[in-house]
Amino acid sequence: MSIFSDLPSLLALHVSHFSLKQALALQTHFGSLEQALQASQAELTNTQLLKPAQLKKLFDQNRHQQVDQAMTWGEQAEQNWLPFGSEHYPKLLQSIDDAPLLLGTRGRVELLQDPQLAIVGSRHASKQGLMIAKDFAQHLSHQGLGITSGLALGIDTAAHQGGLLGIGKTIAVVATGLDRIYPASNQALGRQIVEEGVMVSEFPLGTKPLTYHFPKRNRIISGLSVGTLVVEAALKSGSLITAKTAMNQGREVFAVPGSIHNPQAKGCHQLIKQGAKLVESGQDILEELSSQLQNALMPRSPPQTQDLFATETHEKLTGKNLSLSHPILEYIGYEAIGMDELVVLSKCPVYDIQSQLMLLELSGHVEKLSAGRWRRLN
Amino acid sequence: MSIFSDLPSLLALHVSHFSLKQALALQTHFGSLEQALQASQAELTNTQLLKPAQLKKLFDQNRHQQVDQAMTWGEQAEQNWLPFGSEHYPKLLQSIDDAPLLLGTRGRVELLQDPQLAIVGSRHASKQGLMIAKDFAQHLSHQGLGITSGLALGIDTAAHQGGLLGIGKTIAVVATGLDRIYPASNQALGRQIVEEGVMVSEFPLGTKPLTYHFPKRNRIISGLSVGTLVVEAALKSGSLITAKTAMNQGREVFAVPGSIHNPQAKGCHQLIKQGAKLVESGQDILEELSSQLQNALMPRSPPQTQDLFATETHEKLTGKNLSLSHPILEYIGYEAIGMDELVVLSKCPVYDIQSQLMLLELSGHVEKLSAGRWRRLN
Repeated sequence: MSIFSDLPSLLALHVSHFSLKQALALQTHFGSLEQALQASQAELTNTQLLKPAQLKKLFDQNRHQQVDQAMTWGEQAEQNWLPFGSEHYPKLLQSIDDAPLLLGTRGRVELLQDPQLAIVGSRHASKQGLMIAKDFAQHLSHQGLGITSGLALGIDTAAHQGGLLGIGKTIAVVATGLDRIYPASNQALGRQIVEEGVMVSEFPLGTKPLTYHFPKRNRIISGLSVGTLVVEAALKSGSLITAKTAMNQGREVFAVPGSIHNPQAKGCHQLIKQGAKLVESGQDILEELSSQLQNALMPRSPPQTQDLFATETHEKLTGKNLSLSHPILEYIGYEAIGMDELVVLSKCPVYDIQSQLMLLELSGHVEKLSAGRWRRLN
Repeated sequence: MSIFSDLPSLLALHVSHFSLKQALALQTHFGSLEQALQASQAELTNTQLLKPAQLKKLFDQNRHQQVDQAMTWGEQAEQNWLPFGSEHYPKLLQSIDDAPLLLGTRGRVELLQDPQLAIVGSRHASKQGLMIAKDFAQHLSHQGLGITSGLALGIDTAAHQGGLLGIGKTIAVVATGLDRIYPASNQALGRQIVEEGVMVSEFPLGTKPLTYHFPKRNRIISGLSVGTLVVEAALKSGSLITAKTAMNQGREVFAVPGSIHNPQAKGCHQLIKQGAKLVESGQDILEELSSQLQNALMPRSPPQTQDLFATETHEKLTGKNLSLSHPILEYIGYEAIGMDELVVLSKCPVYDIQSQLMLLELSGHVEKLSAGRWRRLN
């Protein structure tokens, strides 16, 4: 039941900035991605699925070289390409509407399997704000939560630093290719995250920091995380975009209050007015998330990357480890069934069911009906 | 349809600390308060309506002297006794569960007819907290809202000071008799409030500041007000009692956030977690209250105490100005009717209907059924 079985074909789409939906449509149209990539320019144009720039890129000789480079990059230790729907692709991220087609990772990819909390905020934070971000991150990381942020200066940096101090470590979601670290002043922190945590990007190697990539990147920060905490944010800031995205993804949003005379607290106050939870400590967050985290935060045994990823290392992304399990399918019959019933029957968490349903829908096994109900197709 | 028509009898109960419910029960039992007060000690004991201390007080010779003093006090300019149910008794206060039997006022009693906002908080506030309380009070008073507080040091004082700067002025609800001002360090402020605002108490003249009177007093602060704003409060503080009382009275509660490292912000944060609205400015409060305040906040013409209270001054609390109007009664038939329908039919605000219903119920015109429905009795 794997969706994408050929990594070079996927990388060809990846370097041409294809979305998941475009890839699925191409696959459906041509039978497989390999066949799609053998189609003529005219055939591809006729599908009306591609933007002109993407078409141009696909037929650019440079493309093959980029795919080769990406293949080689992904064969190095601690560097991976995770296709949507594959075993190690993070389940929470898989359940969002516009999940990335392919996720590159540098560092301890197994950290992506642990529950994460996003901590974001202003690049121009106060000293107190930085201290608060680091304290929250350290406390929650000690409890086993991975701390996810965007490697920006200010709150992001403090959050990563705090996360590195606990067992949950930290996940940096960047808007550049994984072969560079931005901003330059975070070189040392970036290298430490690659060493002890994990760095993640949906952008091809070589991608420079481009303004319009940052808001797009933010959906991954919130999408990876059970919740997003905003520590100091001005009105109309990028952190509020991440928080909005988290709300749209049905995730919890937390905000730290501050003085009404601090402009960097105004974004947090706006969020609280809109329904975000006011939090004063990491404990507040753990209590709010307790039902979702259930037993996920049991102290982890020391990471055993070698064992966990021995197979992966040898068989990097063959069809074998792209196979999927969908226990939820057995509960879906030809009569429509709703989310509530699926939760009761399967005893799976909602996000896991959502993630499975999306895959089942994309792979044509189930059909989504109105009012959030599904039925089996084959 | 007046409930209590004889002020000396009411004052006899007042100086003996009778509650509204006790007074009504006595009136029902004996036919009138005058007759109740002519009953023998044995007869009164048999009713089981009085506490031993109250019985003792009623038959204490000193009582008559106290009533005479209170009568004389109430005949002075700008000093009034407002019996529950009388024309000038504040309507919002009348709608709470345990409204005071009798309210003494010193100063501009007409201010009690305007919408009020309670501003309360810590006696040990920070300088910033004091500034915030004063700013909010001044802004809202400029918009015509009376600022109600407890004359304590700290936030209360700042709120009164800010309120005095606007046209809405300020209302001090005290836990002592109105012949004294507590705390002593607020003598000058208290005198200014009596001059420009109004001071209110349910306690008999001569009552000293007693610890257990303060929480009881707090229900009047919130009960007079359309909402209560808490500016800086520690956990387990008196301000949180006022906020809790406001919530129980169905009034809005607002809280100003602060740094999570400020112990005086913790009470506010707890309130926000429990559903209080986070506010950053007076404007936030006006927006939240806009539907309740409707046109009540039109700029007022300069106070014309002489005109407004000319009748009152001459006829101080005769049966005449105790008469009540209950337009709501015409919508209540022998079939049960609910609050929603009464709001639609009468086009009156909820608190006004509640207030009228309580009076109609107490005077035996309507009966309260389960599930918040009422029907007519006669």
